[in-house]
Amino acid sequence: MGLKHSTDLKFEVDVNGRKLELNSAEVMRQAFTPMELFLVALGGCTAMDVQWIMDRQRQRLDKFDMSISGLRRTEDPMYFESIDIKYRLAGPNIRKDAVERALRLSAEKYCSVRTMVKDSIKLNITYSISNGTQDETTYTYVP
Amino acid sequence: MGLKHSTDLKFEVDVNGRKLELNSAEVMRQAFTPMELFLVALGGCTAMDVQWIMDRQRQRLDKFDMSISGLRRTEDPMYFESIDIKYRLAGPNIRKDAVERALRLSAEKYCSVRTMVKDSIKLNITYSISNGTQDETTYTYVP
Repeated sequence: MGLKHSTDLKFEVDVNGRKLELNSAEVMRQAFTPMELFLVALGGCTAMDVQWIMDRQRQRLDKFDMSISGLRRTEDPMYFESIDIKYRLAGPNIRKDAVERALRLSAEKYCSVRTMVKDSIKLNITYSISNGTQDETTYTYVP
Repeated sequence: MGLKHSTDLKFEVDVNGRKLELNSAEVMRQAFTPMELFLVALGGCTAMDVQWIMDRQRQRLDKFDMSISGLRRTEDPMYFESIDIKYRLAGPNIRKDAVERALRLSAEKYCSVRTMVKDSIKLNITYSISNGTQDETTYTYVP
């Protein structure tokens, strides 16, 4: 793939014909910052794993979404010291152990992006399960 | 930011109102895969550093682009064992030492994404300099 400088800190990205725009945090507009895309890459990687593994476990998901955010250092390099990931799953009959298994397989076996991230970056992982009729219950995933 | 499952392994991403689409490698269409976005994040991070540092060194860049690609493992987790980055700079009077300095400051001080990536992921970095009138010269960056 290729990145081409445009103006200021704006770059046009070409991923085999698919386009994306990068910019710095000060002037994002419709562009994305590299640190935002890092979170999308990490979150997307494990979200796809979990979706796939839940499907293989015949756990029907009516809804599945995730929120992800990172806490940056205040000095250079301003990397994420910690990253919060919350998986939210809804379906008629989701088993807690099946979710735990999906999270574990993603973390330990499948998630390529996560494998490349230093162990010193702390991941705080929670997940919630809802059967659609009552309030969701939130759990903390312990690696 | 939030990721919401759509169909199959497709996810809709919302980054403070800015939208992006994720999909798996088999069915990308206009979407991006997490591993692609990881490369965009890494490449974009160091590209912005280099642009900014060259500017601070009063090194005029008429053109600046980068190509980045990764070599994945063939077994799970299929992370990038090595990543090739090539910076291409063109301008009337670009000094090699100024480019080296920009690459070094990005690698060692500024690039937040790179700081989060394990040292075991090998980065092969090259750069070329062209003054616009003659062929570009390519160099290997040695950390």
